[in-house]
Amino acid sequence: MTTSPLLTDLYQLTMAAGYWKCGKAEQEAVFHLFFRKLPFSSGYAIAAGLGDVVKWLQGFRFSTAELEYLATLPGRDGKPLFDRGFLDYLGTLEWRCDVDAIPEGTVVFPHEPLLRIRGPLVQAQLAETALLNMINFQTLIATKSARVCLAAQGEQVLEFGLRRAQGPEGAVMASRAAFIGGCSATSNVLAGMTHGIPVRGTHAHSWVMSFETELEAFDAYAEALPNNCVFLVDTYDTLEGVRHAVEVGKRLRARGHELNGVRLDSGDLAWLSIEARRILDEGGFPNAFIVASNDLDENLIESLKHQGAKISVWGVGTQMVTGGAQPALGGVYKLGAIRNEAGEWEPKIKLSENAVKVSNPGIQQVRRFILNGEFRGDAIYDEEHGCAEPVEIMHPTDPTRSKVIEAGSSHEDLLQPVFKGGKLVAALPTLPQIQDRCRQQLTHLHATVKRLQHPHAYPAGVERTLHERKLQLIQKAKS
Amino acid sequence: MTTSPLLTDLYQLTMAAGYWKCGKAEQEAVFHLFFRKLPFSSGYAIAAGLGDVVKWLQGFRFSTAELEYLATLPGRDGKPLFDRGFLDYLGTLEWRCDVDAIPEGTVVFPHEPLLRIRGPLVQAQLAETALLNMINFQTLIATKSARVCLAAQGEQVLEFGLRRAQGPEGAVMASRAAFIGGCSATSNVLAGMTHGIPVRGTHAHSWVMSFETELEAFDAYAEALPNNCVFLVDTYDTLEGVRHAVEVGKRLRARGHELNGVRLDSGDLAWLSIEARRILDEGGFPNAFIVASNDLDENLIESLKHQGAKISVWGVGTQMVTGGAQPALGGVYKLGAIRNEAGEWEPKIKLSENAVKVSNPGIQQVRRFILNGEFRGDAIYDEEHGCAEPVEIMHPTDPTRSKVIEAGSSHEDLLQPVFKGGKLVAALPTLPQIQDRCRQQLTHLHATVKRLQHPHAYPAGVERTLHERKLQLIQKAKS
Repeated sequence: MTTSPLLTDLYQLTMAAGYWKCGKAEQEAVFHLFFRKLPFSSGYAIAAGLGDVVKWLQGFRFSTAELEYLATLPGRDGKPLFDRGFLDYLGTLEWRCDVDAIPEGTVVFPHEPLLRIRGPLVQAQLAETALLNMINFQTLIATKSARVCLAAQGEQVLEFGLRRAQGPEGAVMASRAAFIGGCSATSNVLAGMTHGIPVRGTHAHSWVMSFETELEAFDAYAEALPNNCVFLVDTYDTLEGVRHAVEVGKRLRARGHELNGVRLDSGDLAWLSIEARRILDEGGFPNAFIVASNDLDENLIESLKHQGAKISVWGVGTQMVTGGAQPALGGVYKLGAIRNEAGEWEPKIKLSENAVKVSNPGIQQVRRFILNGEFRGDAIYDEEHGCAEPVEIMHPTDPTRSKVIEAGSSHEDLLQPVFKGGKLVAALPTLPQIQDRCRQQLTHLHATVKRLQHPHAYPAGVERTLHERKLQLIQKAKS
Repeated sequence: MTTSPLLTDLYQLTMAAGYWKCGKAEQEAVFHLFFRKLPFSSGYAIAAGLGDVVKWLQGFRFSTAELEYLATLPGRDGKPLFDRGFLDYLGTLEWRCDVDAIPEGTVVFPHEPLLRIRGPLVQAQLAETALLNMINFQTLIATKSARVCLAAQGEQVLEFGLRRAQGPEGAVMASRAAFIGGCSATSNVLAGMTHGIPVRGTHAHSWVMSFETELEAFDAYAEALPNNCVFLVDTYDTLEGVRHAVEVGKRLRARGHELNGVRLDSGDLAWLSIEARRILDEGGFPNAFIVASNDLDENLIESLKHQGAKISVWGVGTQMVTGGAQPALGGVYKLGAIRNEAGEWEPKIKLSENAVKVSNPGIQQVRRFILNGEFRGDAIYDEEHGCAEPVEIMHPTDPTRSKVIEAGSSHEDLLQPVFKGGKLVAALPTLPQIQDRCRQQLTHLHATVKRLQHPHAYPAGVERTLHERKLQLIQKAKS
C-alpha cells in the first residue's frame, strides 16, 4: 500500500506552510473524523480501515524525492509555491500525534468520531486526506458487506468484485472490508495473499467455450482439478448444464472425488435454482451446493430468498466492492479544539446554514450504553467535561427529541488509544478477530435497527451538556 | 502500482492449471475486452487505462513468494489445489501475447474491443481480471470527466476527489483518468508527482477556525503564501467572507501581489456566486475568479450555468472520482476465437437468453468512418474476413436497423499494436497528449451525441457479414 505523505490534498501542504510561517505549526489541536449520514439508508455502519491507517502513519516521512518534487511546484505568479525553509522543516517531520480510534468491526453512527487526532496542528492537518480516503472507503464497504451477509441469513457470501473495483488497491481494500463485514472468501488472489483471506474460484465461460462441448469441458476440469469442482452451467443452456454437471459428478465420484456444486450466473435465478436443485437431488447430489451470481446485492438476495430460491452460496461483485449507487461515504475531518497561548483548550465549530453540518466542538469521546445485552444508545461527549447524569442523548438535528439513558445500563467508551506521541501503543487485532467483532457487535443491535428498509433510528447524538455548550458557541460565532 | 500477477481471480489460475494439465496451455486464442452499455446514459465513452495495463503486463512474472503462497492453497478436500508441476510452469511464464488496443483518449462505443489479446490460452486468460480492473475504472472516470468538462463549456474543472475515492491507488488512477477527460488539475499531490498533473489547493475551513477571526486567518495566509490566494469564504458567513477577501486583497495588492479568487463550498451557489462577483467587482477585483465546489456533477454545473451563476472554476470531487451513482463500467473479456489442431481459427460465441449478452465471434477490429470531419459510424468486423462493401453497420440488438456508410467516407482502424509476442512495440503518448487526443476526438462527434440527457445514438455495431456469421454460429450452438 502507498505510504507516501504526498497522498494528500495540496491545500494541506499550503496550510502547513502557512502554519509554519506564522509560528502555529506546533500549536496543539484536536481533529475528529466522522460521517454525517449512514450509507445505503442503513440503520448502522461498520467501522473499518484502521489497519491501513496505522500502516500509513507508521510510514509518515517525506523522502528527498518528494521534497524535491514539492520544490518544483509554482505559485500563481510562476515563482516557487513553497519556501526552502518550510521544505527543510517537512523533511524533519515524524509522526508525533496521539490517535484514538473506534476499533474496526464496531457498529458506528453519524457524528461519532471514528478517529480522534491530537497533536501539532501541522501534523494533524497533513494526515487528514489520507485518513479520510482509507476510513471512508473501507467503512462504506464493510457496511455494505454486513448488510449483504445479513440478507444471506448466515449462508456464505463470496466477494467476486476485482474486475469492477476502482483500481487494484481499491479492490484489495474492498476485499479486506468485505471480509470484515462477514464475507467468507474472495476471488481476489492478491487480497488472499496480502490479508490471508480465503480465496475461491473454479472456471469461467471461456473454459467451456474453449472445448468442443460442455460435457468435454466439465470432464477435462474434473480430471485436472478433482478437488475444486463447482461447474458454471449457463454457457449454453443452464439446466442442460446442470445435467452435464451431474453426469460428470458421477464419474468424479467413481474416482473417489465429489462434485462440490454448480454456479448460476444469468437468467431467472429463483426458478433456475429450484430446477437445478431438483436435478442435483434426483441425480444423487443432495450435498452439492448452488452458487449464484449476477449483479446481486442485499435487496436481490432478500427477494430471491422470499421467492424460495435454492441458492446456498452468494457471489457478490460490483455492488460489494464499490457500494453500488452509493460509492462514497461522506466522512469529514473537523477541528474540535485548539490549545491557546495560555495553554487552555478552546473548543471550535464550523458554522453552516445546514444544521447537520455545524461541527461538534471539544475533545470528543463516544460512550455506548448497554442494557440486557442490547446497545441502547451512544452519547458523544467532551472528555474535558464528562457526561452529566442522567445521560441525555440529543437528536442530531431535532433539538426537541432526546433520549435519557435507563438506570442500570452499563457503558463503554469506544475511542481507544492507538498512537501516543506518535508511537503505536495498541496491539492490532487480526482480520478474523475483526470479522468476529463485527459479528458480535451486530448481535447487540435490535433487529429493527438491522432491517434493510426503513430501519429504526438508533439513538446516537451529542450528550446534553455538550449540546448546550455548542449552542453557546454558535451564538458567540454569529454575534 | 501493483504489478503482481496475483491481481487476478482465483478461477483464472485454476483454469490455467486445467489448460496446462490437458495440454491446451499453449493453444492460441483471441480475447476481446469490451463493455455492453455506455455509463451515465452518455452518448459516448472515453477509452482510458492502457498506460497502467502496459505497466502491469511488463511486470507480468510470478515471484517465488507468490508461487509459495499458491502452493499453500487447499482444494475442497483440504489437499493442495495446485500441482507442484503447474506452479513450476507458472514460474517460467513471461508475457508473450500480442496486444492491440484503442488508444487512450479515443471516443468508444458498446461492443467495440478496447483491447484484443492474442496468444497462448493460459496467458491471455491470466491477464483478464487485471485488464478489466484497470480499463473498466479509468474508462468510467475519463468518460465522467469528459461529460463534466463539456458541461463547464471550456471553463477550468479541478478534480478534488482524493478523500472520497476508493483507496489511495483508486484516487491516483481517478486523477489520471479525470485529466484525460479534460480536468486541468487535481488536489491530489501524489497524482501530481506520479503523473505530472498540475496540482491546486489553498486552505480549508480548519485554517480559518484555527484563528480568532476570519480576517486574521486570511491576512496570515496572504502573508505566508502571497502567490496562492484563493480564500475559502464560507466558514461563518459567505458574503462577509467575500468582503474580508476583498479587504485582504487590497493589502495584498499594496504589497505587489494579487488576490487570485475566492472559493464557495456550500449554500446556494447560483445566488452566492452572483453576489460574490458583485462584491469582488465593486471592490476592485474583476479578475479574481470564483471557484465553486460541493458535490457537483455535470448536471448541477449545467443547471448553475442556466441560472447565470458567476462561477468560472469548478471543483468536482466525489462524483468525478467514483462515477457517482454508477461506480463501475461493466466491461467484460470474451473469447472470440481459438486455433484448432489443424491450425485454423475457430470463431467462438457465448450464448445468453439476453441478446445483448451473446458475444461477437472472430478476430475483431473496429473501423471508424469519417465524412467532412465528422465521425459517422463504427463497424466491428472480423480481420479474417474484412468488411463487405458497401459497409453496413447492424444495430447491436435490433436486427431490423442498420446504417450503410456513405460513399466518400474515409476510415481508420482503431485497434493499434501495443505488444507483439510480448514485446512492447508502441511508443506510449504522454498524459497531455492523451488529454489532447480526447479533446480532438470530441470535436468530431455531432453535438447531439454529446448532449448530457437523451443523446442521439451514434451508429456502432457489427458489420453485416460478421453479423451473418454470428447468426449461423448461434444456430449451430443451439442445435
